[in-house]
Amino acid sequence: DPTQQENYFSRETLDRLSGKRTDQAWLEAKQSDPHTVYLLFSNLSPMVSSSQVKESGKVPHHLHKEVHLYLALIRKYNNQWWEVTKYIYSTTVLIFLGVEKRKKPSSSSSPSRSSQRQEGTWEPPAWFAIGSVEDSAELLKRCSENCSFPKMPNRDLLTLSEEEAGEEEVWWLRLGRPSRYSVCPTCGGSTKLEEGGYKRSCLNSDCKSLQGVHNTCYPRVDPVVIMLVIHPDGNQCLLGRKKIFPVGMFSCLAGFIEPGEAIEEAVRREVEEESGVKVGPVQYISCQPWPMPSNLMIGCLAVAVSTDIRVDKNEIEEARWFPRQQVIDSVFRAVRPAFSLPPRQTIAHQLIRHWIGTSSNL
Amino acid sequence: DPTQQENYFSRETLDRLSGKRTDQAWLEAKQSDPHTVYLLFSNLSPMVSSSQVKESGKVPHHLHKEVHLYLALIRKYNNQWWEVTKYIYSTTVLIFLGVEKRKKPSSSSSPSRSSQRQEGTWEPPAWFAIGSVEDSAELLKRCSENCSFPKMPNRDLLTLSEEEAGEEEVWWLRLGRPSRYSVCPTCGGSTKLEEGGYKRSCLNSDCKSLQGVHNTCYPRVDPVVIMLVIHPDGNQCLLGRKKIFPVGMFSCLAGFIEPGEAIEEAVRREVEEESGVKVGPVQYISCQPWPMPSNLMIGCLAVAVSTDIRVDKNEIEEARWFPRQQVIDSVFRAVRPAFSLPPRQTIAHQLIRHWIGTSSNL
Ligand SMILES: Nc1ncnc2c1ncn2[C@@H]1O[C@H](COP(=O)(O)O)[C@@H](O)[C@H]1O
Ligand SMILES: Nc1ncnc2c1ncn2[C@@H]1O[C@H](COP(=O)(O)O)[C@@H](O)[C@H]1O
Ligand SMILES: [Mg+2]
Ligand SMILES: [Mg+2]
Ligand SMILES: [Mg+2]
Ligand SMILES: [Mg+2]
Ligand SMILES: [Mg+2]
Ligand SMILES: [Mg+2]
Ligand SMILES: [Zn+2]
Ligand SMILES: [Zn+2]
Repeated sequence: DPTQQENYFSRETLDRLSGKRTDQAWLEAKQSDPHTVYLLFSNLSPMVSSSQVKESGKVPHHLHKEVHLYLALIRKYNNQWWEVTKYIYSTTVLIFLGVEKRKKPSSSSSPSRSSQRQEGTWEPPAWFAIGSVEDSAELLKRCSENCSFPKMPNRDLLTLSEEEAGEEEVWWLRLGRPSRYSVCPTCGGSTKLEEGGYKRSCLNSDCKSLQGVHNTCYPRVDPVVIMLVIHPDGNQCLLGRKKIFPVGMFSCLAGFIEPGEAIEEAVRREVEEESGVKVGPVQYISCQPWPMPSNLMIGCLAVAVSTDIRVDKNEIEEARWFPRQQVIDSVFRAVRPAFSLPPRQTIAHQLIRHWIGTSSNL
Repeated sequence: DPTQQENYFSRETLDRLSGKRTDQAWLEAKQSDPHTVYLLFSNLSPMVSSSQVKESGKVPHHLHKEVHLYLALIRKYNNQWWEVTKYIYSTTVLIFLGVEKRKKPSSSSSPSRSSQRQEGTWEPPAWFAIGSVEDSAELLKRCSENCSFPKMPNRDLLTLSEEEAGEEEVWWLRLGRPSRYSVCPTCGGSTKLEEGGYKRSCLNSDCKSLQGVHNTCYPRVDPVVIMLVIHPDGNQCLLGRKKIFPVGMFSCLAGFIEPGEAIEEAVRREVEEESGVKVGPVQYISCQPWPMPSNLMIGCLAVAVSTDIRVDKNEIEEARWFPRQQVIDSVFRAVRPAFSLPPRQTIAHQLIRHWIGTSSNL
């Protein structure tokens, strides 16, 4: 099956250009390029300037001319561009996100969204994110006229378009992390951002984190298994509900992969822990990056080799075998379905859809 | 294909019993159970007592009676059993690893390796690891007679049996981590181990890491994609070599999954970054936990949609398309192979073997 499932949050609107992260000259040039796009946040709330219509959910884009005063202030308080978190609780970060994946626009399209270099070779616009917390928010307001950071308490991430979801994910991942990881976990020392904000290194030159094999300075990606367990008869699947789910909703079981585990083992362990059901063969289907805080949901079908359910009440309120027809009714929103499913933007929904699209024999 | 590839380091000899991690009474009972197995380390070197033959590579097992003095000392210096790293640089950790997966032995087998509870129900032996660094090593030597921590500088992890590799991986992962992650990365405060040593929580009750959605207190698992890229003609594959590889050795390309990426996207990005080759369909094959420091290698076949190679010299010294027959010669160690491959314990080797076992059309 060469047509790959594209899950919500997995569209990449930016090319990360990881090779440019160490190219200071290139990064600095892009920072002052008039076509560069900035996303500005304070405590994960996006900055909205008065000239921008506040569209619900959508993160506003800012151009260099709107943020150059702020950039100058960051530079003033730091010796180097990227050392913006030199002291603990210094809380403004500038992060290179990537460049737009869009191809060179045709001559008829607006020139304002592309970048023209002297030599005339077209380059796609670069994107940066600036995040600040506490006092820095004041600073930011002072240098950008008529700007505010409206709190968006009930922002429903699942109502965004695929494109918007991709953007949303980018800044959430890159800005959510720094405030949780500003101290070196090995020695407690201050850290500085490097590589366009991707890496965070300890400033204490004696620190063990600077020697040998280690991962402390890189952002985390936490792999999670999420699995649809199929009954040995091939015509029922196992779904569970947590206490916090809306009434009547059931979903796939899921759990964090632990150190030293393979994907398939994590599937077997989590299913047995949460439901008491034993799993045999496991098949990878597709995956979904999930930005809260930084998970990679690895979606599998798993074939049960036992059927008795014994639920772990700490994690799951109830788990049941559902007949295929009931599941089809829920996916296609029959008039009175026996239960409801998570929305189509979730990989759980997509795994279930995948299963009802297959024959009863795996 | 229901028979799943089992890769080196992926055999689980212990059942993690994650549900017991919060059961203090059970953990304490197991700690003094005479059948409990302890693995003792100082700076990742295993403790060997004079009664034990020092088998090369194998980590010695210790029973409760050999370590009870040491356990008493740990308890004395800490208010609670699990608070063994209460102060920064306090450096002894006691970690619950799990219980043996082996079934109840038949009555003919030795009773010394099983645990008999009052009621007569058999329980498999529990395993714990104790790791100490610096001064604690002295402490440990003083309370265990005739013990030493012989340095094993050239231990070749790849020469262990599957079973030993599974064990090795367990302690490496659980003990290697605490010394790199003893400080709270959010506030710089001291941390304590909880849940039998699985979780590390901040002791500062105001810390943001104790509020909301976060992952700072859990051990890391870093997902990596490793891929065999197949030529569009189906009969060649792309292999590369890093400068540090032995002369003549080539292997699969690989790279860390970044936050917000799906597995398939990471494959496409890393292959293009390192070799300039563009990839279309990606197929997951199998995975391998790799304990240095804590990676999950996700193995894929990837079909190239371009063939020109432009190597990123920072990461790769050389990359080439190799014809299937040359690859077969290398796998089966023909007399004069064109190049050599990494050993069979690596997932790279297994991916290559998988490919030569498939037809030329994917
Ligand atoms: N990396 C992590 N991030 C968040 N929670 C984790 C992580 N690893 C383990 N957990 C714990 O796993 C619980 C959810 O269980 P499960 O998803 O079934 O593994 C959470 O409530 C946490 O206590
Ligand atoms: N979690 C991580 N652990 C170790 N190195 C990482 C990690 N994330 C990114 N890197 C960097 O990735 C480089 C290897 O490149 P690659 O494996 O191709 O992604 C290393 O030399 C590190 O600079
Ligand atoms: Mg669970
Ligand atoms: Mg779990
Ligand atoms: Mg779960
Ligand atoms: Mg790379
Ligand atoms: Mg990389
Ligand atoms: Mg690489
Ligand atoms: Zn440090
Ligand atoms: Zn803290």
